[in-house]
Amino acid sequence: MSITVVGSVAYDSIETPAGRRERCLGGAATYFALAASFFTDVRVIAVVGEDFGPEQEAVFKARDIDTRGIEHAPGKCFLWEGSYLDNINEAKTHLTELNVFACFEPKIPAAYADSDFLFLANIDPVLQRRVREAMPKVKLVAGDTMNYWIKDHRPALLEVLRGLDVLLINDTEARMLAENSNLVKAARAVMAMGPRHLVIKHGEYGATLFQGAGKGTGKGKESENTFRAPALPLEEVIDPTGAGDSFAGGFFGYLASQAEQTADDFRHAMFYGSVMGSFACERFGTERLQELTRGEIDERFGVFRELTHLA
Amino acid sequence: MSITVVGSVAYDSIETPAGRRERCLGGAATYFALAASFFTDVRVIAVVGEDFGPEQEAVFKARDIDTRGIEHAPGKCFLWEGSYLDNINEAKTHLTELNVFACFEPKIPAAYADSDFLFLANIDPVLQRRVREAMPKVKLVAGDTMNYWIKDHRPALLEVLRGLDVLLINDTEARMLAENSNLVKAARAVMAMGPRHLVIKHGEYGATLFQGAGKGTGKGKESENTFRAPALPLEEVIDPTGAGDSFAGGFFGYLASQAEQTADDFRHAMFYGSVMGSFACERFGTERLQELTRGEIDERFGVFRELTHLA
Repeated sequence: MSITVVGSVAYDSIETPAGRRERCLGGAATYFALAASFFTDVRVIAVVGEDFGPEQEAVFKARDIDTRGIEHAPGKCFLWEGSYLDNINEAKTHLTELNVFACFEPKIPAAYADSDFLFLANIDPVLQRRVREAMPKVKLVAGDTMNYWIKDHRPALLEVLRGLDVLLINDTEARMLAENSNLVKAARAVMAMGPRHLVIKHGEYGATLFQGAGKGTGKGKESENTFRAPALPLEEVIDPTGAGDSFAGGFFGYLASQAEQTADDFRHAMFYGSVMGSFACERFGTERLQELTRGEIDERFGVFRELTHLA
Repeated sequence: MSITVVGSVAYDSIETPAGRRERCLGGAATYFALAASFFTDVRVIAVVGEDFGPEQEAVFKARDIDTRGIEHAPGKCFLWEGSYLDNINEAKTHLTELNVFACFEPKIPAAYADSDFLFLANIDPVLQRRVREAMPKVKLVAGDTMNYWIKDHRPALLEVLRGLDVLLINDTEARMLAENSNLVKAARAVMAMGPRHLVIKHGEYGATLFQGAGKGTGKGKESENTFRAPALPLEEVIDPTGAGDSFAGGFFGYLASQAEQTADDFRHAMFYGSVMGSFACERFGTERLQELTRGEIDERFGVFRELTHLA
């Protein structure tokens, strides 16, 4: 089944301890779409500028990603400049130029209307809501957000959360959104805002899936509907940009590839998310995702399984 | 098989968001011994003052822990005062009174000589080494340390590491010891200092076991001899004091209870460590460990297994 994703397609200038790259193709929708494309059909809604040409288009085409929803506008693409010199796990933003993104009005091609899955990448919650409302028939809606929207656009964000089935955020965002430092209590509070499934990402420590009550396994309160997936201990993180979006792409792409979305599918999806996040870090920008094969993904899935497997 | 543990038996005055307790029975050897006692025989080497009486002795006796190696000296027990008000994961030390610990000269009772397992809890590496050398016949030696010894007593600590089979430390300590911020590289550097098995604890995110090369599983370089155990997402952490020592007790206690220490035993030991660490946090001081049953431990082991189980 196909996924429509709305989000940024952008350029990133990135500096990490491993080096520096100017104007890599990036953006949440780009990473998400590339990662998800290994599992299912993906359709992108975004806006780009005149500096997005055939070379960039080819990155999507090589993965059979539908780009009919990528609007070409006068001006330049969204640009982000950041570094990870002090802490490889935390980006320091040096510059953000919204450019064509400043006036983004998502337009949904008619051909996207039969999508069963919708991913609202991290953009203005007002836009997320508009896309959500324009696609009322989707089966499962997932979304992402960030500290900026949580802090300064809370009412609009809360509207979006009410319409989400799955929210994927990191620890800091979960604690900030719930205004509670305990992760279990924070998870419960966030799920009360709408999403029945909550994925909290812990960076190099993996991610936890929390799921709403009513599906008791009889295994005790603490574990009920809770699942922890590891991250791969990586010897070298070249560039963590897009790791979270790649996680989301692997996670949601795998779910969309399954006939139903069972509890077991969600667990596997957590692993596939971790797998795609780990690949994203191995090279600058989308380099690693562009040359990846499904065989490598399945091999690494086995590595992850082994990493937590108890005989 | 029995474990001898050398370390502190102390009093802790603790403040957490859940409240305050004055002079709880604590110390690394106490937590370790209580946790390990659910799996195997435990013998303690420590020094206490005149403020350690029959009531405290009874805590050990109730768990059949051998206290013949606990020396009674004139003066007071080691005292620690700390709080976790800003960050439940990080203790802020307000006061440390070494008291009888200042002149601690570990004496090993003849009855302990046939111990097969030795745990060197976090004390002066000079003392750790002395005990290690006095028990040359043990089968497996594990140890712990802390930032203070890593920073200011490095040569003595390096001597200890050369004689260790297993080292259990946290992320910060591993990075500091290896002088490398990448955890995989840090692990490799620390193992080059001596221990073939390295457990790096990530607090609320679980722990990773790294094991030396030469036992390849053919599952790819990243996972080779690496295992991640989760921590239980706890709704309420009453008091994290002793969680690391309880982890060590569960981990090493389980290993000592097995005929051989296979790769699979090490994986199970990681889970039992996490189980005991999670119990320790549920009440102040050793309260939870004192009233725990083996049935509860096995039940929670099942919860942990479910938490990461992939069908």
